[in-house]
Amino acid sequence: MAVLPSHIQELVKSMSSLPGIGQKSASRLVFYLLRDGGDLAMKLSEDLAALKTKTVSCPVCYGVMSASRDICDICSSPHRDHQIICVVEKQMDMIVMESAGIFKGLYHILNGAISPMNGVNPEDLMIDELERRVKVGNIKEVILATSAGLEGDTTGLYIQNLLAGCQVRVTKLARGLSVGADLEYADLRTLSQAFAGRS
Amino acid sequence: MAVLPSHIQELVKSMSSLPGIGQKSASRLVFYLLRDGGDLAMKLSEDLAALKTKTVSCPVCYGVMSASRDICDICSSPHRDHQIICVVEKQMDMIVMESAGIFKGLYHILNGAISPMNGVNPEDLMIDELERRVKVGNIKEVILATSAGLEGDTTGLYIQNLLAGCQVRVTKLARGLSVGADLEYADLRTLSQAFAGRS
Repeated sequence: MAVLPSHIQELVKSMSSLPGIGQKSASRLVFYLLRDGGDLAMKLSEDLAALKTKTVSCPVCYGVMSASRDICDICSSPHRDHQIICVVEKQMDMIVMESAGIFKGLYHILNGAISPMNGVNPEDLMIDELERRVKVGNIKEVILATSAGLEGDTTGLYIQNLLAGCQVRVTKLARGLSVGADLEYADLRTLSQAFAGRS
Repeated sequence: MAVLPSHIQELVKSMSSLPGIGQKSASRLVFYLLRDGGDLAMKLSEDLAALKTKTVSCPVCYGVMSASRDICDICSSPHRDHQIICVVEKQMDMIVMESAGIFKGLYHILNGAISPMNGVNPEDLMIDELERRVKVGNIKEVILATSAGLEGDTTGLYIQNLLAGCQVRVTKLARGLSVGADLEYADLRTLSQAFAGRS
Protein backbone atom coordinates (compact mmCIF):
# COMPACT_ATOMS: atom_id res chain seq x y z
CA MET A 1 0.00 0.00 0.00
CA ALA A 2 3.10 2.19 0.06
CA VAL A 3 2.02 3.68 -3.27
CA LEU A 4 -1.00 5.35 -1.70
CA PRO A 5 -1.02 8.84 -0.15
CA SER A 6 -0.54 8.68 3.63
CA HIS A 7 -4.06 9.92 4.49
CA ILE A 8 -5.54 7.07 2.42
CA GLN A 9 -3.17 4.56 4.04
CA GLU A 10 -4.38 5.80 7.43
CA LEU A 11 -8.01 5.26 6.48
CA VAL A 12 -7.27 1.79 5.08
CA LYS A 13 -5.52 0.96 8.37
CA SER A 14 -8.41 2.20 10.51
CA MET A 15 -10.96 0.34 8.38
CA SER A 16 -9.00 -2.91 8.42
CA SER A 17 -8.98 -2.88 12.22
CA LEU A 18 -12.72 -3.54 12.05
CA PRO A 19 -13.65 -7.22 12.45
CA GLY A 20 -14.05 -9.11 9.19
CA ILE A 21 -12.44 -6.38 7.07
CA GLY A 22 -8.96 -7.13 5.80
CA GLN A 23 -6.55 -4.74 4.15
CA LYS A 24 -7.76 -5.57 0.65
CA SER A 25 -11.46 -5.14 1.47
CA ALA A 26 -10.61 -1.92 3.29
CA SER A 27 -8.83 -0.57 0.19
CA ARG A 28 -11.82 -1.53 -1.95
CA LEU A 29 -14.17 0.31 0.39
CA VAL A 30 -11.94 3.38 0.35
CA PHE A 31 -11.85 3.49 -3.46
CA TYR A 32 -15.60 2.97 -3.53
CA LEU A 33 -15.94 6.01 -1.26
CA LEU A 34 -13.58 8.00 -3.48
CA ARG A 35 -15.56 7.19 -6.63
CA ASP A 36 -18.89 7.77 -4.91
CA GLY A 37 -20.66 10.74 -6.42
CA GLY A 38 -22.82 11.52 -3.37
CA ASP A 39 -21.10 12.24 -0.12
CA LEU A 40 -21.20 8.93 1.66
CA ALA A 41 -17.70 9.42 3.14
CA MET A 42 -18.76 12.69 4.77
CA LYS A 43 -22.07 11.20 5.94
CA LEU A 44 -20.26 8.22 7.47
CA SER A 45 -17.75 10.53 9.11
CA GLU A 46 -20.51 12.57 10.76
CA ASP A 47 -22.49 9.49 11.84
CA LEU A 48 -19.35 7.94 13.34
CA ALA A 49 -18.46 11.13 15.20
CA ALA A 50 -21.92 11.13 16.77
CA LEU A 51 -21.80 7.45 17.73
CA LYS A 52 -20.14 7.59 21.12
CA THR A 53 -21.29 11.06 22.17
CA LYS A 54 -24.95 10.32 21.49
CA THR A 55 -25.06 6.76 22.87
CA VAL A 56 -25.57 5.80 26.52
CA SER A 57 -26.74 2.64 28.31
CA CYS A 58 -30.33 2.33 29.42
CA PRO A 59 -30.15 2.25 33.25
CA VAL A 60 -32.78 -0.52 33.33
CA CYS A 61 -31.85 -3.06 30.64
CA TYR A 62 -28.31 -1.84 29.80
CA GLY A 63 -29.10 -1.77 26.10
CA VAL A 64 -28.03 1.20 23.98
CA MET A 65 -30.20 4.29 23.84
CA SER A 66 -29.97 7.90 22.76
CA ALA A 67 -28.29 10.23 25.30
CA SER A 68 -31.38 12.45 25.16
CA ARG A 69 -33.54 9.76 26.81
CA ASP A 70 -33.85 8.74 30.48
CA ILE A 71 -34.87 5.16 29.76
CA CYS A 72 -35.02 3.20 26.50
CA ASP A 73 -38.06 2.75 24.24
CA ILE A 74 -38.65 -0.87 25.19
CA CYS A 75 -38.24 -0.37 28.96
CA SER A 76 -40.63 2.60 28.87
CA SER A 77 -43.22 1.07 26.54
CA PRO A 78 -46.70 0.54 28.05
CA HIS A 79 -47.37 -2.07 25.34
CA ARG A 80 -44.86 -4.58 26.66
CA ASP A 81 -45.15 -7.10 29.46
CA HIS A 82 -43.05 -5.67 32.29
CA GLN A 83 -43.20 -8.93 34.25
CA ILE A 84 -41.06 -10.99 31.88
CA ILE A 85 -37.34 -10.36 31.30
CA CYS A 86 -35.41 -12.00 28.51
CA VAL A 87 -31.70 -12.15 29.39
CA VAL A 88 -29.32 -11.88 26.42
CA GLU A 89 -25.54 -11.60 26.17
CA LYS A 90 -25.38 -8.67 23.80
CA GLN A 91 -27.39 -6.01 22.02
CA MET A 92 -27.27 -7.87 18.68
CA ASP A 93 -29.09 -10.83 20.29
CA MET A 94 -31.83 -8.47 21.38
CA ILE A 95 -32.12 -7.02 17.87
CA VAL A 96 -32.44 -10.50 16.35
CA MET A 97 -35.11 -11.39 18.93
CA GLU A 98 -36.97 -8.13 18.19
CA SER A 99 -36.86 -8.63 14.45
CA ALA A 100 -38.38 -12.10 14.95
CA GLY A 101 -41.22 -10.31 16.76
CA ILE A 102 -41.89 -13.28 19.05
CA PHE A 103 -41.28 -11.64 22.42
CA LYS A 104 -43.22 -8.81 23.97
CA GLY A 105 -41.56 -8.52 27.39
CA LEU A 106 -38.46 -6.60 28.49
CA TYR A 107 -34.79 -7.39 28.00
CA HIS A 108 -31.68 -7.46 30.14
CA ILE A 109 -28.35 -7.18 28.34
CA LEU A 110 -25.45 -8.81 30.21
CA ASN A 111 -22.69 -7.31 28.05
CA GLY A 112 -20.99 -10.65 27.56
CA ALA A 113 -20.82 -14.16 28.99
CA ILE A 114 -18.82 -15.64 31.87
CA SER A 115 -15.47 -16.79 30.51
CA PRO A 116 -12.70 -17.20 33.11
CA MET A 117 -10.29 -18.12 30.28
CA ASN A 118 -10.74 -14.63 28.84
CA GLY A 119 -10.84 -12.99 32.27
CA VAL A 120 -14.59 -12.34 32.20
CA ASN A 121 -16.07 -13.04 35.64
CA PRO A 122 -19.68 -12.64 36.83
CA GLU A 123 -18.89 -9.27 38.39
CA ASP A 124 -17.81 -7.94 34.97
CA LEU A 125 -21.32 -8.54 33.62
CA MET A 126 -24.68 -6.97 34.44
CA ILE A 127 -25.66 -9.97 36.57
CA ASP A 128 -25.94 -8.23 39.96
CA GLU A 129 -28.06 -5.60 38.22
CA LEU A 130 -30.34 -8.38 36.94
CA GLU A 131 -30.70 -9.84 40.46
CA ARG A 132 -31.57 -6.39 41.82
CA ARG A 133 -34.10 -5.88 39.02
CA VAL A 134 -35.77 -9.21 39.77
CA LYS A 135 -35.85 -8.57 43.54
CA VAL A 136 -37.15 -5.01 43.32
CA GLY A 137 -39.57 -5.31 40.41
CA ASN A 138 -42.64 -7.46 40.11
CA ILE A 139 -41.03 -10.02 37.77
CA LYS A 140 -42.78 -13.34 37.10
CA GLU A 141 -40.42 -14.94 34.62
CA VAL A 142 -36.77 -14.66 33.56
CA ILE A 143 -36.02 -16.26 30.19
CA LEU A 144 -32.34 -17.15 29.77
CA ALA A 145 -31.49 -16.59 26.12
CA THR A 146 -27.70 -16.83 26.42
CA SER A 147 -25.89 -18.43 23.50
CA ALA A 148 -25.87 -22.22 23.18
CA GLY A 149 -22.14 -22.75 23.80
CA LEU A 150 -20.08 -23.49 26.89
CA GLU A 151 -19.81 -19.85 28.00
CA GLY A 152 -23.47 -19.10 27.42
CA ASP A 153 -24.49 -22.26 29.30
CA THR A 154 -22.16 -21.39 32.22
CA THR A 155 -23.64 -17.91 32.38
CA GLY A 156 -27.17 -19.29 32.27
CA LEU A 157 -26.44 -21.79 35.04
CA TYR A 158 -24.84 -19.09 37.21
CA ILE A 159 -27.91 -16.86 36.88
CA GLN A 160 -30.23 -19.81 37.50
CA ASN A 161 -28.45 -20.55 40.81
CA LEU A 162 -28.37 -16.88 41.75
CA LEU A 163 -32.12 -16.48 41.24
CA ALA A 164 -33.00 -19.80 42.91
CA GLY A 165 -34.05 -18.02 46.12
CA CYS A 166 -36.24 -15.45 44.34
CA GLN A 167 -39.95 -15.94 43.67
CA VAL A 168 -39.44 -16.06 39.91
CA ARG A 169 -39.77 -18.68 37.21
CA VAL A 170 -36.46 -19.14 35.37
CA THR A 171 -36.69 -20.74 31.93
CA LYS A 172 -34.25 -21.20 29.07
CA LEU A 173 -34.67 -21.43 25.31
CA ALA A 174 -35.28 -24.93 23.95
CA ARG A 175 -32.36 -26.84 22.45
CA GLY A 176 -32.71 -29.13 19.47
CA LEU A 177 -32.42 -29.36 15.71
CA SER A 178 -32.65 -26.12 13.74
CA VAL A 179 -35.60 -25.88 11.38
CA GLY A 180 -34.64 -27.55 8.09
CA ALA A 181 -31.61 -29.26 9.65
CA ASP A 182 -30.53 -32.58 8.20
CA LEU A 183 -30.02 -35.26 10.90
CA GLU A 184 -26.96 -36.49 9.01
CA TYR A 185 -25.12 -33.21 9.60
CA ALA A 186 -26.27 -32.51 13.18
CA ASP A 187 -23.49 -32.48 15.75
CA LEU A 188 -23.57 -35.01 18.60
CA ARG A 189 -24.40 -32.55 21.41
CA THR A 190 -27.27 -31.01 19.46
CA LEU A 191 -28.57 -34.48 18.61
CA SER A 192 -28.40 -35.68 22.20
CA GLN A 193 -30.15 -32.53 23.45
CA ALA A 194 -32.83 -32.91 20.77
CA PHE A 195 -33.25 -36.53 21.85
CA ALA A 196 -33.44 -35.71 25.56
CA GLY A 197 -35.96 -32.94 24.93
CA ARG A 198 -38.22 -34.95 22.61
CA SER A 199 -41.94 -34.36 22.96
CA MET B 1 -33.65 -2.19 13.66
CA ALA B 2 -36.50 -0.03 14.91
CA VAL B 3 -35.41 -0.77 18.47
CA LEU B 4 -32.16 1.16 18.02
CA PRO B 5 -31.73 4.90 18.67
CA SER B 6 -32.07 6.91 15.45
CA HIS B 7 -28.42 8.03 15.33
CA ILE B 8 -27.32 4.37 15.42
CA GLN B 9 -29.89 3.47 12.76
CA GLU B 10 -28.45 6.25 10.59
CA LEU B 11 -24.92 4.87 10.97
CA VAL B 12 -26.07 1.31 10.23
CA LYS B 13 -27.80 2.65 7.09
CA SER B 14 -24.71 4.55 5.92
CA MET B 15 -22.46 1.56 6.56
CA SER B 16 -24.73 -0.88 4.81
CA SER B 17 -24.64 1.24 1.67
CA LEU B 18 -20.99 0.21 1.32
CA PRO B 19 -20.44 -2.70 -1.10
CA GLY B 20 -20.35 -6.11 0.55
CA ILE B 21 -21.74 -4.86 3.87
CA GLY B 22 -25.33 -5.81 4.61
CA GLN B 23 -27.51 -4.50 7.38
CA LYS B 24 -26.51 -7.26 9.79
CA SER B 25 -22.75 -6.85 9.24
CA ALA B 26 -23.20 -3.09 9.55
CA SER B 27 -24.92 -3.50 12.94
CA ARG B 28 -22.14 -5.82 14.09
CA LEU B 29 -19.52 -3.24 13.09
CA VAL B 30 -21.42 -0.49 14.90
CA PHE B 31 -21.62 -2.53 18.12
CA TYR B 32 -17.95 -3.38 17.79
CA LEU B 33 -17.22 0.35 17.58
CA LEU B 34 -19.43 1.01 20.60
CA ARG B 35 -17.67 -1.62 22.71
CA ASP B 36 -14.23 -0.53 21.49
CA GLY B 37 -12.21 0.89 24.34
CA GLY B 38 -9.87 2.98 22.18
CA ASP B 39 -11.40 5.58 19.94
CA LEU B 40 -11.59 3.83 16.61
CA ALA B 41 -14.96 5.43 15.77
CA MET B 42 -13.52 8.92 16.19
CA LYS B 43 -10.34 7.99 14.28
CA LEU B 44 -12.42 6.56 11.42
CA SER B 45 -14.61 9.64 11.42
CA GLU B 46 -11.60 11.96 11.09
CA ASP B 47 -9.93 9.82 8.41
CA LEU B 48 -13.16 9.70 6.42
CA ALA B 49 -13.65 13.46 6.68
CA ALA B 50 -10.16 13.98 5.24
CA LEU B 51 -10.64 11.49 2.41
CA LYS B 52 -12.19 13.67 -0.26
CA THR B 53 -10.64 16.98 0.73
CA LYS B 54 -7.11 15.60 0.76
CA THR B 55 -7.33 13.43 -2.35
CA VAL B 56 -6.85 14.61 -5.93
CA SER B 57 -5.99 12.89 -9.22
CA CYS B 58 -2.42 12.87 -10.45
CA PRO B 59 -2.50 14.98 -13.66
CA VAL B 60 -0.20 12.47 -15.37
CA CYS B 61 -1.46 8.97 -14.52
CA TYR B 62 -4.87 9.86 -13.01
CA GLY B 63 -4.18 7.78 -9.92
CA VAL B 64 -4.96 9.16 -6.48
CA MET B 65 -2.48 11.41 -4.72
CA SER B 66 -2.34 13.80 -1.83
CA ALA B 67 -3.69 17.30 -2.58
CA SER B 68 -0.40 18.73 -1.33
CA ARG B 69 1.52 17.22 -4.29
CA ASP B 70 1.79 18.39 -7.91
CA ILE B 71 2.41 14.94 -9.35
CA CYS B 72 2.26 11.47 -7.74
CA ASP B 73 5.18 9.53 -6.22
CA ILE B 74 5.40 7.03 -9.06
CA CYS B 75 5.14 9.57 -11.88
CA SER B 76 7.82 11.73 -10.25
CA SER B 77 10.18 8.90 -9.28
CA PRO B 78 13.62 8.93 -10.96
CA HIS B 79 13.94 5.21 -10.20
CA ARG B 80 11.21 4.15 -12.60
CA ASP B 81 11.28 3.60 -16.33
CA HIS B 82 9.43 6.59 -17.81
CA GLN B 83 9.26 4.99 -21.25
CA ILE B 84 6.85 2.19 -20.34
CA ILE B 85 3.22 2.77 -19.38
CA CYS B 86 1.05 0.06 -17.88
CA VAL B 87 -2.64 0.80 -18.53
CA VAL B 88 -5.03 -0.40 -15.83
CA GLU B 89 -8.76 0.07 -15.32
CA LYS B 90 -8.66 1.19 -11.72
CA GLN B 91 -6.44 2.20 -8.85
CA MET B 92 -6.83 -1.19 -7.10
CA ASP B 93 -5.31 -2.92 -10.16
CA MET B 94 -2.29 -0.65 -9.86
CA ILE B 95 -1.94 -1.46 -6.16
CA VAL B 96 -2.04 -5.20 -6.85
CA MET B 97 0.59 -4.77 -9.57
CA GLU B 98 2.77 -2.70 -7.25
CA SER B 99 2.52 -5.19 -4.41
CA ALA B 100 3.65 -7.92 -6.82
CA GLY B 101 6.71 -5.73 -7.44
CA ILE B 102 7.13 -6.95 -11.02
CA PHE B 103 6.77 -3.67 -12.89
CA LYS B 104 9.05 -0.66 -12.67
CA GLY B 105 7.51 1.66 -15.26
CA LEU B 106 4.67 4.17 -14.99
CA TYR B 107 0.91 3.64 -14.86
CA HIS B 108 -2.12 5.08 -16.54
CA ILE B 109 -5.45 4.64 -14.76
CA LEU B 110 -8.43 4.64 -17.11
CA ASN B 111 -11.07 4.96 -14.37
CA GLY B 112 -13.15 2.11 -15.74
CA ALA B 113 -13.68 0.04 -18.89
CA ILE B 114 -15.75 0.63 -22.01
CA SER B 115 -19.23 -0.72 -21.40
CA PRO B 116 -21.98 0.66 -23.66
CA MET B 117 -24.55 -1.41 -21.73
CA ASN B 118 -23.75 0.62 -18.61
CA GLY B 119 -23.40 3.86 -20.54
CA VAL B 120 -19.60 3.97 -20.28
CA ASN B 121 -18.13 5.16 -23.58
CA PRO B 122 -14.46 5.76 -24.49
CA GLU B 123 -14.84 9.51 -23.87
CA ASP B 124 -15.85 8.79 -20.25
CA LEU B 125 -12.47 7.20 -19.61
CA MET B 126 -8.94 8.61 -19.57
CA ILE B 127 -8.24 7.22 -23.04
CA ASP B 128 -7.70 10.52 -24.89
CA GLU B 129 -5.32 11.48 -22.09
CA LEU B 130 -3.40 8.25 -22.67
CA GLU B 131 -3.12 8.98 -26.40
CA ARG B 132 -1.85 12.49 -25.66
CA ARG B 133 0.66 11.10 -23.15
CA VAL B 134 1.98 8.61 -25.70
CA LYS B 135 2.20 11.24 -28.45
CA VAL B 136 3.87 13.91 -26.35
CA GLY B 137 6.18 11.78 -24.20
CA ASN B 138 8.99 9.53 -25.29
CA ILE B 139 7.07 6.28 -24.72
CA LYS B 140 8.42 2.99 -26.07
CA GLU B 141 5.84 0.53 -24.80
CA VAL B 142 2.23 0.55 -23.62
CA ILE B 143 1.22 -2.57 -21.68
CA LEU B 144 -2.52 -3.16 -21.68
CA ALA B 145 -3.40 -4.64 -18.30
CA THR B 146 -7.17 -4.30 -18.53
CA SER B 147 -9.21 -7.06 -16.93
CA ALA B 148 -9.65 -10.34 -18.77
CA GLY B 149 -13.39 -10.08 -19.42
CA LEU B 150 -15.46 -8.73 -22.32
CA GLU B 151 -15.31 -5.10 -21.20
CA GLY B 152 -11.59 -5.18 -20.45
CA ASP B 153 -10.88 -6.82 -23.82
CA THR B 154 -13.03 -4.26 -25.65
CA THR B 155 -11.20 -1.44 -23.90
CA GLY B 156 -7.82 -3.00 -24.74
CA LEU B 157 -8.76 -3.43 -28.40
CA TYR B 158 -10.02 0.15 -28.61
CA ILE B 159 -6.74 1.50 -27.24
CA GLN B 160 -4.73 -0.80 -29.49
CA ASN B 161 -6.50 0.61 -32.57
CA LEU B 162 -6.17 4.15 -31.28
CA LEU B 163 -2.40 3.83 -30.82
CA ALA B 164 -1.85 1.93 -34.09
CA GLY B 165 -0.55 5.09 -35.77
CA CYS B 166 1.88 5.97 -32.97
CA GLN B 167 5.48 4.81 -32.85
CA VAL B 168 4.89 2.67 -29.77
CA ARG B 169 4.86 -1.03 -29.01
CA VAL B 170 1.49 -2.09 -27.61
CA THR B 171 1.46 -5.36 -25.65
CA LYS B 172 -1.07 -7.07 -23.45
CA LEU B 173 -0.78 -9.41 -20.47
CA ALA B 174 -0.57 -13.10 -21.33
CA ARG B 175 -3.68 -15.25 -21.02
CA GLY B 176 -3.59 -18.81 -19.84
CA LEU B 177 -4.00 -21.10 -16.86
CA SER B 178 -3.47 -19.57 -13.43
CA VAL B 179 -0.53 -20.97 -11.46
CA GLY B 180 -1.71 -24.10 -9.65
CA ALA B 181 -4.89 -24.34 -11.75
CA ASP B 182 -6.36 -27.77 -12.37
CA LEU B 183 -7.10 -28.38 -16.06
CA GLU B 184 -10.30 -30.12 -15.07
CA TYR B 185 -11.76 -26.94 -13.64
CA ALA B 186 -10.47 -24.46 -16.24
CA ASP B 187 -13.19 -22.73 -18.25
CA LEU B 188 -13.32 -23.21 -22.01
CA ARG B 189 -12.18 -19.71 -23.00
CA THR B 190 -9.18 -19.80 -20.66
CA LEU B 191 -8.28 -23.25 -21.93
CA SER B 192 -8.49 -22.22 -25.59
CA GLN B 193 -6.40 -19.11 -24.93
CA ALA B 194 -3.81 -21.20 -23.05
CA PHE B 195 -3.77 -23.60 -25.98
CA ALA B 196 -3.40 -20.87 -28.59
CA GLY B 197 -0.62 -19.20 -26.61
CA ARG B 198 1.37 -22.39 -25.96
CA SER B 199 5.13 -22.03 -26.08
